[in-house]
Amino acid sequence: MRFCRFQRDGKTGFGIIDDADTVTVIKGSPFENYAVTGESHVLGELKLLAPIVPPTFYAAGVNYREHVTFAAQVRGEEPVFPAKPDVGYRAVNALAAHEDPIVIPHDASEKVQYEGELVAVIGRRCRNVPEDEALDYVFGYTIGNDVSERTWQKSDRTLWRAKNTDTFKPMGPWIVTDLDPDDLHVTITLNDRAVGEYDVSTAIFGVARYISAMSRYMTLVPGDVLWMGTDGATENMKDGDVVAVEISQIGTLRNPVVREQDPAGS
Amino acid sequence: MRFCRFQRDGKTGFGIIDDADTVTVIKGSPFENYAVTGESHVLGELKLLAPIVPPTFYAAGVNYREHVTFAAQVRGEEPVFPAKPDVGYRAVNALAAHEDPIVIPHDASEKVQYEGELVAVIGRRCRNVPEDEALDYVFGYTIGNDVSERTWQKSDRTLWRAKNTDTFKPMGPWIVTDLDPDDLHVTITLNDRAVGEYDVSTAIFGVARYISAMSRYMTLVPGDVLWMGTDGATENMKDGDVVAVEISQIGTLRNPVVREQDPAGS
Repeated sequence: MRFCRFQRDGKTGFGIIDDADTVTVIKGSPFENYAVTGESHVLGELKLLAPIVPPTFYAAGVNYREHVTFAAQVRGEEPVFPAKPDVGYRAVNALAAHEDPIVIPHDASEKVQYEGELVAVIGRRCRNVPEDEALDYVFGYTIGNDVSERTWQKSDRTLWRAKNTDTFKPMGPWIVTDLDPDDLHVTITLNDRAVGEYDVSTAIFGVARYISAMSRYMTLVPGDVLWMGTDGATENMKDGDVVAVEISQIGTLRNPVVREQDPAGS
Repeated sequence: MRFCRFQRDGKTGFGIIDDADTVTVIKGSPFENYAVTGESHVLGELKLLAPIVPPTFYAAGVNYREHVTFAAQVRGEEPVFPAKPDVGYRAVNALAAHEDPIVIPHDASEKVQYEGELVAVIGRRCRNVPEDEALDYVFGYTIGNDVSERTWQKSDRTLWRAKNTDTFKPMGPWIVTDLDPDDLHVTITLNDRAVGEYDVSTAIFGVARYISAMSRYMTLVPGDVLWMGTDGATENMKDGDVVAVEISQIGTLRNPVVREQDPAGS
């Protein structure tokens, strides 16, 4: 099943999308006992929102070998692969929906880059979950673009503006249930040119391993998201570009890129 | 005014606490146009909750000189003071209320330590706020204890379990409005023994500076919290201890400490 979140007439709702792209509005949360209403809309006529606003926004960060190697080369260092799944965090202020613009601040460098990745959405409260049961707690999967300003990523003490500037976390377009995360393929395009692709299954630590490790110390709750990291090298995005992340069996998350005007006019 | 959040008969609500410690229940959010109801309770008979669950949980991290020096000494390094207010993040799963136990995982080291600090609660949506107007967007202030496992803080790639293990972020007991953050004094006690104290005003970067810097890139929204960091050296807490953080004009956040039993019985 496909679940989306949308805004219409100033109100926010969840819906189920059928194969004919008709959205049937539901009452309640997709994670609980929702009720299907008689209200439906054409998908293309709805303003989609990020499919969930997570209570906690987890991100694996470095989790694919080629990306670790690429990042090390940029820094002129030897690659160091993570020895265990130490999860990181992102912030909800930065969320953007499918088709929303990624707005680059005027004082950012040219090095604003995409990172296309799988997102697991937690569906059931859990703590201390063994790895072989961990996927039972996943509601479904969506797509994320972990937009990153590389100079701030290096210069700042934390990833606050490098990765959490408003609009730097596009997520969507919807959540798809009943998928095997190890059976998914990611393709990233910049202005319709393929710039990266990889199999989700080549992650250093998979979804189940991460959830099991996290839940040893943390209670995961419905709506929490876990971004799984990207693979490969990444390129700069500039004003006027369109970036798209496609994941097989899920869909395509596409966003235009806009650079903020310098108010000083420089 | 003092605002609290509480649980009663399985329901969660907000209330206003008067000088006689009577809690008048309000309808709606403290940040918006709430309505005072006719329902009231005795403060001491209510189960308090963390006074807010923030959409985004910001933390200044290192923001006081003596604490930076202490942390550097522990690592055998020279202290490096932050040159600009690069904000960090914590996670809502870790929130605990006043009087809730801080539960130390059985596999944690002995180095689980308190960090008592001021918390600013955002009351109005803002972006690009000049420093001299930033405090206008603060709803009020509460108290936080940024509990930290020092070996994980050093060994892990991120602060996930070092600072975000469930119950490691006590916050409360309530939010007090109309305070000058630079007029507040923090006192930390462990089993009624004073183990640290400092003036909030000695921070490297104050509340207004942080909010202004953050809002350059991020939209802050009502309920977001900003933990301001602690000063001085910190000590280990063990099973049976009681830790308290008192801030003048706000109150005292007190929590018992419990070590989780090792299920393997070792």
